Amino acid sequence: MTEFYKEITPAGFGIAIKQGEILFSQQSPFQKVEVFETDSELGRVLTLDDLMMTTEGDEFYYHEMIAHIPMMNHREPKTVLVIGGGDGGTIREVLKHSTVEKAVLCEIDAMVIDICRKFLPGIACALDDPRVEIRTEDAIEFIKDKTAAYDIVLIDSTDPMGPGEGLFTEEFYTNVRKSLRLGGIMAAQSESPVVNKKEIGKMYSLLKKVFPICATFTSPIPTYPGGYWAWAYCSAEVPPLSYIDEERAAQISAQCKIYNRDYHLARFALPNFLKEIVG
Amino acid sequence: MTEFYKEITPAGFGIAIKQGEILFSQQSPFQKVEVFETDSELGRVLTLDDLMMTTEGDEFYYHEMIAHIPMMNHREPKTVLVIGGGDGGTIREVLKHSTVEKAVLCEIDAMVIDICRKFLPGIACALDDPRVEIRTEDAIEFIKDKTAAYDIVLIDSTDPMGPGEGLFTEEFYTNVRKSLRLGGIMAAQSESPVVNKKEIGKMYSLLKKVFPICATFTSPIPTYPGGYWAWAYCSAEVPPLSYIDEERAAQISAQCKIYNRDYHLARFALPNFLKEIVG
Repeated sequence: MTEFYKEITPAGFGIAIKQGEILFSQQSPFQKVEVFETDSELGRVLTLDDLMMTTEGDEFYYHEMIAHIPMMNHREPKTVLVIGGGDGGTIREVLKHSTVEKAVLCEIDAMVIDICRKFLPGIACALDDPRVEIRTEDAIEFIKDKTAAYDIVLIDSTDPMGPGEGLFTEEFYTNVRKSLRLGGIMAAQSESPVVNKKEIGKMYSLLKKVFPICATFTSPIPTYPGGYWAWAYCSAEVPPLSYIDEERAAQISAQCKIYNRDYHLARFALPNFLKEIVG
Repeated sequence: MTEFYKEITPAGFGIAIKQGEILFSQQSPFQKVEVFETDSELGRVLTLDDLMMTTEGDEFYYHEMIAHIPMMNHREPKTVLVIGGGDGGTIREVLKHSTVEKAVLCEIDAMVIDICRKFLPGIACALDDPRVEIRTEDAIEFIKDKTAAYDIVLIDSTDPMGPGEGLFTEEFYTNVRKSLRLGGIMAAQSESPVVNKKEIGKMYSLLKKVFPICATFTSPIPTYPGGYWAWAYCSAEVPPLSYIDEERAAQISAQCKIYNRDYHLARFALPNFLKEIVG
């Protein structure tokens, strides 16, 4: 009998994946880390605490969006901080921008980094780039003494429960804002508009207390709950879509499965129900 | 033990829904028709031949898009033909346009119409509107003698296998084009960009033989395979986004959970991989 990995949300539905061999399954100090094989185009799948994190087959839907939408809106992103994102996919996309001199990955769980290097090399491949600095620390502590340090901060976290909970607080967002340089931009994964309406409402009410500019962009993600995902775009000075580096957009688009200039421009147009939630 | 409805695509993954009571399950002359209850916000679910058709909870993701994107691009859509769509959801959206004088529903399977009226009244509610004419016939035959009869034709079909197969042929598309008035627009559901890449490629190669103008628009659908859906927009004369009736867009938006003018304008921006497939 075929085994299925199922992730059923409180909304009563979710995804099911034909599960092959479990390649790795272990409890880290923070969470259960598991990688399993599929015989489909999804390839290998990473879950944390039994929740879908990424798959080899569809990871680009998430990583291209969280990285390129904020990065392309910045005139010259040189220093980037990725919080969470231990699989390395966001860092890989960040490094496609020729302007980047330094990318810091602050991931609390060393096991995630290690097993992604081993089992998901296509996603983790950029972690050895000389521009990358890896800090296996709690981002809540890491960010506290950073002032005007980063052009871009990307919060590539798990959900607002479990180890990622402290990354969804007003105090943390305040510290992230302080860590941004003038003209800096933060983007953060902000859950599924389909199944996490309450969590989204709470998150944006906090973000708006901290950032004068707070917008939402969305894009599909086939293996995430509801198939549809939202990210927050926040800045003290730079509105979304106020700038797109045309030359860089063309360079990046040539290396992407999704990202292109027109797709970027379309991302902030929201369904009515989501506009109501994010305010 | 909880029962799950699962729809696993050849891509190796799909959706899972906690299934409640089966309210109706019968073989019609054309297909297996089933409605089951859920205890979630999805409400009741309609499947045909065990494939997801619609749910009370997320049907608006599909119906608002197939109806309003083409209808709003037409200056005065008076006569509309919906092919398939026996649940009535597309007709309900069509009738929100105050310009419409007549909407014909051509659905081959009377059982679908009957059970949707009975079990999914929120979706089927507009089928008794005096502007609606219901024809329980094969659309392939129905369309043959229609010439310059409709401003809008919407193909709200099942997949290109089973009873819907004949709705994905060059001959059928040619007859649909003939059935359109000057300035007419056809829209057709065109499967999932995530899991039906081959079917999409084939469909668009046929559509392009028939229609000088052939474009693609996309939007999320939580309970469809891959969570992401595509529709074809075809016309002999009218390019997509060449016109939006501002007043009507505002009226319709006020009655919709998704549709608004900005969301409309953003729908034709496609991911790179999909641009390659549709050409």
